[in-house]
Amino acid sequence: MMKAAVYYPGEGIRIDERPVPQPAADHLLIRVQAAGICGSDMHYYKDGHIGDWWIKQPHVLGHEFAGEVAAIGADVTGFTIGERVAIEPIIPCGACSSCGAGLYNLCLNLKFTGSPHTDGAFQEYVQVRPRFAHPIPDHMPFELAALVEPTSIAVHAVRRSRLTVGDSVAVIGAGPIGLLTLAVAKASGAAHTIITDMDEARLEMAQALGADVVLHAAGNVEREIMAMTDDRGVDVAFEAVGLPATIETALRVVRAGGNLTLIGVTPEKTVPFNLMLAQAKEVDIAPVYLGRDAFPAALELLASGRVNGQAIITHRFPLMDMATAMDTAVQRKDNAVKVIVTTTEAGLQTD
Amino acid sequence: MMKAAVYYPGEGIRIDERPVPQPAADHLLIRVQAAGICGSDMHYYKDGHIGDWWIKQPHVLGHEFAGEVAAIGADVTGFTIGERVAIEPIIPCGACSSCGAGLYNLCLNLKFTGSPHTDGAFQEYVQVRPRFAHPIPDHMPFELAALVEPTSIAVHAVRRSRLTVGDSVAVIGAGPIGLLTLAVAKASGAAHTIITDMDEARLEMAQALGADVVLHAAGNVEREIMAMTDDRGVDVAFEAVGLPATIETALRVVRAGGNLTLIGVTPEKTVPFNLMLAQAKEVDIAPVYLGRDAFPAALELLASGRVNGQAIITHRFPLMDMATAMDTAVQRKDNAVKVIVTTTEAGLQTD
Amino acid sequence: MMKAAVYYPGEGIRIDERPVPQPAADHLLIRVQAAGICGSDMHYYKDGHIGDWWIKQPHVLGHEFAGEVAAIGADVTGFTIGERVAIEPIIPCGACSSCGAGLYNLCLNLKFTGSPHTDGAFQEYVQVRPRFAHPIPDHMPFELAALVEPTSIAVHAVRRSRLTVGDSVAVIGAGPIGLLTLAVAKASGAAHTIITDMDEARLEMAQALGADVVLHAAGNVEREIMAMTDDRGVDVAFEAVGLPATIETALRVVRAGGNLTLIGVTPEKTVPFNLMLAQAKEVDIAPVYLGRDAFPAALELLASGRVNGQAIITHRFPLMDMATAMDTAVQRKDNAVKVIVTTTEAGLQTD
Amino acid sequence: MMKAAVYYPGEGIRIDERPVPQPAADHLLIRVQAAGICGSDMHYYKDGHIGDWWIKQPHVLGHEFAGEVAAIGADVTGFTIGERVAIEPIIPCGACSSCGAGLYNLCLNLKFTGSPHTDGAFQEYVQVRPRFAHPIPDHMPFELAALVEPTSIAVHAVRRSRLTVGDSVAVIGAGPIGLLTLAVAKASGAAHTIITDMDEARLEMAQALGADVVLHAAGNVEREIMAMTDDRGVDVAFEAVGLPATIETALRVVRAGGNLTLIGVTPEKTVPFNLMLAQAKEVDIAPVYLGRDAFPAALELLASGRVNGQAIITHRFPLMDMATAMDTAVQRKDNAVKVIVTTTEAGLQTD
Repeated sequence: MMKAAVYYPGEGIRIDERPVPQPAADHLLIRVQAAGICGSDMHYYKDGHIGDWWIKQPHVLGHEFAGEVAAIGADVTGFTIGERVAIEPIIPCGACSSCGAGLYNLCLNLKFTGSPHTDGAFQEYVQVRPRFAHPIPDHMPFELAALVEPTSIAVHAVRRSRLTVGDSVAVIGAGPIGLLTLAVAKASGAAHTIITDMDEARLEMAQALGADVVLHAAGNVEREIMAMTDDRGVDVAFEAVGLPATIETALRVVRAGGNLTLIGVTPEKTVPFNLMLAQAKEVDIAPVYLGRDAFPAALELLASGRVNGQAIITHRFPLMDMATAMDTAVQRKDNAVKVIVTTTEAGLQTD
Repeated sequence: MMKAAVYYPGEGIRIDERPVPQPAADHLLIRVQAAGICGSDMHYYKDGHIGDWWIKQPHVLGHEFAGEVAAIGADVTGFTIGERVAIEPIIPCGACSSCGAGLYNLCLNLKFTGSPHTDGAFQEYVQVRPRFAHPIPDHMPFELAALVEPTSIAVHAVRRSRLTVGDSVAVIGAGPIGLLTLAVAKASGAAHTIITDMDEARLEMAQALGADVVLHAAGNVEREIMAMTDDRGVDVAFEAVGLPATIETALRVVRAGGNLTLIGVTPEKTVPFNLMLAQAKEVDIAPVYLGRDAFPAALELLASGRVNGQAIITHRFPLMDMATAMDTAVQRKDNAVKVIVTTTEAGLQTD
Repeated sequence: MMKAAVYYPGEGIRIDERPVPQPAADHLLIRVQAAGICGSDMHYYKDGHIGDWWIKQPHVLGHEFAGEVAAIGADVTGFTIGERVAIEPIIPCGACSSCGAGLYNLCLNLKFTGSPHTDGAFQEYVQVRPRFAHPIPDHMPFELAALVEPTSIAVHAVRRSRLTVGDSVAVIGAGPIGLLTLAVAKASGAAHTIITDMDEARLEMAQALGADVVLHAAGNVEREIMAMTDDRGVDVAFEAVGLPATIETALRVVRAGGNLTLIGVTPEKTVPFNLMLAQAKEVDIAPVYLGRDAFPAALELLASGRVNGQAIITHRFPLMDMATAMDTAVQRKDNAVKVIVTTTEAGLQTD
Repeated sequence: MMKAAVYYPGEGIRIDERPVPQPAADHLLIRVQAAGICGSDMHYYKDGHIGDWWIKQPHVLGHEFAGEVAAIGADVTGFTIGERVAIEPIIPCGACSSCGAGLYNLCLNLKFTGSPHTDGAFQEYVQVRPRFAHPIPDHMPFELAALVEPTSIAVHAVRRSRLTVGDSVAVIGAGPIGLLTLAVAKASGAAHTIITDMDEARLEMAQALGADVVLHAAGNVEREIMAMTDDRGVDVAFEAVGLPATIETALRVVRAGGNLTLIGVTPEKTVPFNLMLAQAKEVDIAPVYLGRDAFPAALELLASGRVNGQAIITHRFPLMDMATAMDTAVQRKDNAVKVIVTTTEAGLQTD
């Protein structure tokens, strides 16, 4: 039997005992060691749904995780028991037109570890397909490996933006994804990186991650960025909030012919969009969904320290304190940014 | 002296006598022969403004035109009197960062023939810079040459869409730009072309321009297009209306990883945009503004008949009847699509 | 039992009787109706090898073909007996890094119908995987469907060239692939298409396929093309011969910043390459190998008549006359361009 | 009067007295402070020509340089006397089709500071156009600013290669350009960087510049790189030598569908090229010529220390010792890599 932090819709999170799963012949069983709490986990926890995706049954959240190989399906080769891995939580069908073209994050029948109907990582053991288990170096802490997933989104966003060495960059929003995008953009050759947010603590953190300029969002962000760029605007803007005002700001600060990459998620059916301005500047717009072929790059950036992942981990809780961990993340207690849940032996004891 | 059709804000159009301009040393003087009425001319005529661009003084509209070289500035070489030319109406500054990068349609100090403060083509003579006067073949009628400008927008839109041979295409909206975009997409190797509109007459015209499928917009366009594409959606969607509902449709019918090119202009400050859907499909979004380096291609497509421009010209009026011409276009009298104003000798007489 | 045209290395082609294959559970059995002779078939026939690929056993050549579904493996769905199909002859492994990225023509373990060790289409029946059987319209003759394969190479080459509407194009070499590339480029929006070859008959054929200009290669091709393009050169050059002199010409006639797509195959280990010139012009160079995701586009272009495939078919022979067919193709008898072998009932009788 | 190091064809370098030039109205006069010796300077010095470009008159070489604004032409704004600048040595015509498209390094009438007929930087004063004078930070030494030019070539090469974050990279050749390309690739997000050369000292220097792996070219470079990449090859190979063997190696170590960027210059009319292999892997080939829009990025990378330019500067000589400086560079005395000539006051004295 194993411990699982189960979210009961309308009630909250309870620690249950569940049987340890047996891996299918083409799967690995992973002993989870560390798992991060993502904004989407918080949405499900607070609201019970994201858009049309509802959680109606008791459910285990969590999709940013790393651990050890605990058992190996009969048909799987190339892994050893105890091997340390970071897990890519996408579960594509492999048969649709998107999968055939290699666009597996856009699978038409996409499943996702931790999404409704597929239990996630806030428990001791999870089954995964070997293709999505990425070995990590010995020296890499599991909690850092749990950041590979959000970092892979940042890597994918930077690729979608077509950023090239020497480009100027603005990141709107300094949540975990915004911060990691800033760091990945810098590590990808961005010359001048500007980040903005309402939260002073997060702006300080941005400096530790390599931001050249931090702007408090209470100021006139557009005017300041235009002044810094000789009234041209930046080459690439990353929107990492998802609100109408931040989307408008992101569009306003991009140069004519530049790129606007949309990472921020909105729960609204639509957002107001300044089409006339987007046209007058012919801004290329790249919406982003998860990541694709981005785990190796994300892993390398974190393991080498070129992206300072450790800097965004503010809190660690044992799995037994999952509810506290979630509340800390949701309420941003003590300037919480990334909250990690550990499911090591020690992690199974309440403090 | 020459005749000019002058728009008086709040009053209407009058035919005035004005002095024929003398060309500056680095300009050509063009004797206008044919000029088309564009949707933006209609907007100015009806409302007195487009967005923040207001017409406050008596003004000559018109920017889709062709004519003959009537006089040559002292410093200009390479032209002869009487040479037949189609005119690109963009007037870039040549000095800003956009111009330096060759993105002259995104000039930060853009002027435009026929826009407020720069008189346009609904008169007998116009000054232009030689770079923007494109010689046309002898056999090409002036009215067809007047279509090079709107066709150049279609060419630019097709390039922005990254359409490649064999792609499936949906065009939302069968106005002049939508129709020309359809025709240019087909001439650029699009395999399956679908167009939709509320107007039966325009859908018939679309078939003459090479549409493989026409769909009346009263039906369930999304469902029909998905059925035709095995539930994948089209590779490229061109939005050529600018309304919230058509933008939503265009987004819905693009395949995952496809392209949405936004040509349609809205007078609204913002339009509602389905960000979540754009992200889930990672649709590349390409807003379009005028054209760039597209006159030669547009000219060749029309002159060779590969784009059947003649098919969209429904009405011709002499310059003296400019007000009637404009009313015909605005009210879509007799299924008017493209209305041409002629300023030939005959065109200077009222019928 | 069925008839097969078997190539015996060092001897020639004989018509043998062989048992009809039973399709594997995940395969279709195709009753071949028409098959084209490709340059590579001729190389194998003449020399017994291409580069390091040797034919050492009796072997059935042929990979450009179409036919009817004759039997359906137990696990295959979506096909009916008698369905008419064009066959994509690539047999990728599905497991390597190229296949995972969707680049199946670059499969690291590539097999190919008709290549050494995989018998080809110059026989009555061939097994194929359903993914690579492309249904054709009822009205499309089988001999035209046999051209889908070479046309798919032209489609892929045009995509690799990044050709866009309005581009000027030079095709060096008017063999079947050069001719089809010309036609596909034209159907993809190329504005000015120039083709050159030593063979007058093929240049005449090029005009039927839409060439704007044909140049005999005995003249000064470089000087003529530069003169036609105001000394700029063409936007895209396709090299479809594979000889040092034609590669040099292709490079010389491309504009600075243009594209050179290399289709022509050489049997030599290396070809001399003018690196200094390629650098001074920063020509993007795109070597081409087979096709990828190009069958649907090629099929549509041929079926719609936008590419006039019929124009290049000069000879038809029954399968029983395979040796004569091959000699006709190899020796270019009667200006042979594309020679088709028919394996219909009638095709199994010698004339 | 000023000092100038003049190369006399067939004789060698002499220090002459020449009049200080007066800047034209649209030019700046630069007081040179530091100038690097480039491989092309060495070629001219040794052979009197590069390809068809011959030096027939006494000539001042040098194009990698930085200095102070000494005089300002009457029509120039935006500069102050004494301002510190790095100079981009390209002199485009501004009127040809390449210039119009923003491809100024491919100018059809290109001139270049230090090339035959345009005296270069190995003297005290040089005239330049203001667009090509890039202000440098106060803290940036002039000798580092003299590296902006070769670093801009590396930046341009990395952009041409379409390298994206996480890509694996091989650089063939550890001369100054190869070393800087390695460093720029690393700063642009390359994950695994491999460099190879015959020269142990240069390989050691490569490690200081961030190479993950250095390989002595005497070993089996191809086999080692394939082993490191699971037999796939690297995503991007930069060829920075220009010899047949190194071009072949670069092609062999790129993965299928990868990119080969050709920076190395050859004095030969042609080099042997493995076309068949380039096709079988569909390697995108990007020849490189100088740089374009790359000075700001190069300057920032050097000034911030993200590219460790200082590490490649091995020798410094006063202008009066120009001949010794050149011999040191040509003969690679004391493991010379980048040799800097200083024209400061002190630099005008022989040691």
